[in-house]
Amino acid sequence: MLPVRSLMLMSIILLMIFSGCSEESPANIPNVAISKPDYVLAIHGGAGVITKENMNEEKELAYQSALNKALDLGEEVLKGGGTSLDAVVAAITFMEDSPLFNAGKGAVFNHDGQNEMDASIMEGKELMAGAIGGVRTIKHPILAARAVMEKSEHVMLVGQGAETFAKEQGLEIVDPSYFYTQQRWDALQNVLKSDPDRSELDHSDRKHGTVGAVALDRHGNLAAATSTGGMTNKRYNRIGDSPIIGAGTYADNGTCAVSCTGHGEYFIRYAVAHSLAAQMEYGHKSLKEAGDHIIHDVLVKAGGTGGLISVDKDGNVYLPFNTEGMYRGFTKPGMREVKIYKE
Amino acid sequence: MLPVRSLMLMSIILLMIFSGCSEESPANIPNVAISKPDYVLAIHGGAGVITKENMNEEKELAYQSALNKALDLGEEVLKGGGTSLDAVVAAITFMEDSPLFNAGKGAVFNHDGQNEMDASIMEGKELMAGAIGGVRTIKHPILAARAVMEKSEHVMLVGQGAETFAKEQGLEIVDPSYFYTQQRWDALQNVLKSDPDRSELDHSDRKHGTVGAVALDRHGNLAAATSTGGMTNKRYNRIGDSPIIGAGTYADNGTCAVSCTGHGEYFIRYAVAHSLAAQMEYGHKSLKEAGDHIIHDVLVKAGGTGGLISVDKDGNVYLPFNTEGMYRGFTKPGMREVKIYKE
Repeated sequence: MLPVRSLMLMSIILLMIFSGCSEESPANIPNVAISKPDYVLAIHGGAGVITKENMNEEKELAYQSALNKALDLGEEVLKGGGTSLDAVVAAITFMEDSPLFNAGKGAVFNHDGQNEMDASIMEGKELMAGAIGGVRTIKHPILAARAVMEKSEHVMLVGQGAETFAKEQGLEIVDPSYFYTQQRWDALQNVLKSDPDRSELDHSDRKHGTVGAVALDRHGNLAAATSTGGMTNKRYNRIGDSPIIGAGTYADNGTCAVSCTGHGEYFIRYAVAHSLAAQMEYGHKSLKEAGDHIIHDVLVKAGGTGGLISVDKDGNVYLPFNTEGMYRGFTKPGMREVKIYKE
Repeated sequence: MLPVRSLMLMSIILLMIFSGCSEESPANIPNVAISKPDYVLAIHGGAGVITKENMNEEKELAYQSALNKALDLGEEVLKGGGTSLDAVVAAITFMEDSPLFNAGKGAVFNHDGQNEMDASIMEGKELMAGAIGGVRTIKHPILAARAVMEKSEHVMLVGQGAETFAKEQGLEIVDPSYFYTQQRWDALQNVLKSDPDRSELDHSDRKHGTVGAVALDRHGNLAAATSTGGMTNKRYNRIGDSPIIGAGTYADNGTCAVSCTGHGEYFIRYAVAHSLAAQMEYGHKSLKEAGDHIIHDVLVKAGGTGGLISVDKDGNVYLPFNTEGMYRGFTKPGMREVKIYKE
């Protein structure tokens, strides 16, 4: 027979074990959307110092309209039973065509006055991926990234090799002057005058104008894509996170699809896009917990500014950012949101 | 007072909880090397179809001698209280100089008959990283990757931009012919004759000859580095996993340092190097559990061949590969191993 004191001690130990066990495994709480939507599409047009004070009504409306149009184009694909891959490509090619965003037409200029673009794409079923870096003549960089994924044995091609490949694949090639916009040119001149050795994250209004899209389709397949002109005044054929699978883009049907925007070097060093998928897979975190951890804790402590858009296999959407604003939106049956500033 | 039966029942419940808890959280079992070594250095010289039958004694001795020499050079740094960064660089520059390995002198040829090299480096304290891709004139690509990390605001530079940067940093620039070796040239000619459209993982003896090093120093800092010539007959400025932080290289003092070798496209898609760190951080796995999962489960199922070397913050070393062999070795106070074939 044990004395009462021993039994009490045993109870305390029991309690400690119980609480210890549940703390170790938040995993056990399932994280399923209340009702899984038929499809989901989320997009971003860059994160940065985007405040109401720096904006005028006309510009605000232009961004809202462009984001809605991109969502329309992607949603049309998903509504018709199309694939998440086709949906993210539809949304991104439109944003590449819009001079409002730092991708395709409207890309920022590098130190030598050239537009040098990066893009990547990934699908979550077979984890196939494609990326291109430092291209100057491909009208839609995202289509070249997709061609690398689908038509080559490689994942990443850069520079002239990537351009040769895109041309062989029949993609639209344009004269580099196609990408010129006065606003981005002026931004480069401002940086060159003030601090020529420093590259700037789209200096004109200090936002990072990278575009991205993530989607879940009716077949349960996830996809993610990202396209960018990189940093104003960048030098030495710098490659940012956008064409790096695991940094700027990731998709895995077992967890989530992610596209990032921000100070790319930090997103590479912390493998931000893959971190979300890994936190969900190995740490059994929810999409929101994983996104908050990397964007609001890890990156904030490191000094890395930016944000991401994400959708998980159950149709949950989360669009966290640690900057003043992020051009963003999402759409699913019966619901659409387009936002610019912090809430 | 409780009857004996109740106490027995309570004991059984206690036992179930204990075993349940340890299954849910293998994390709770600390995974510390029996006594943490003062320093550890591990290296690889590529993984692939390396069998005793394909080897002769002379070649075997040459590889063993080169691996031992690389370990000597790195160990000298660590023994003297030097940093893990200096140690991995010492080991890798030697392997870049050796024509036995597919990095630096002895790099494979691309489709156009050029040597086109990639390298990356990362340190685990501040998670700083540097990488270069597709360079043709930098004698020691790993030194250029380190310069990107330490002397630029960027993480990744490619092509001519990377070469310009390396030159400005005072690194040794050589004529592209410096990298020529008859063996690699013949390998390209063989591929061009047999199947010109297919790139080959170092076709000559079908091994992937990438080199890598990981180290833990006396200050508790981890570092990882990787250098390669990529794939024989590669086209379109293909970039493999070696210069991709998170794919071919990763280091984080909180978990481990990793350098990979193998079919690079798979290592990018599965973010292999970062996966190890993430499995340890979020899944509380041991270094061995994390390495086995990605190399012997995930990659085998996907069809991705290769291996990796890894050392964790407690000085554990693990060098898994799913190919016939991997040139590899490690050294720590009182212990050295150099191996080529599967056990």
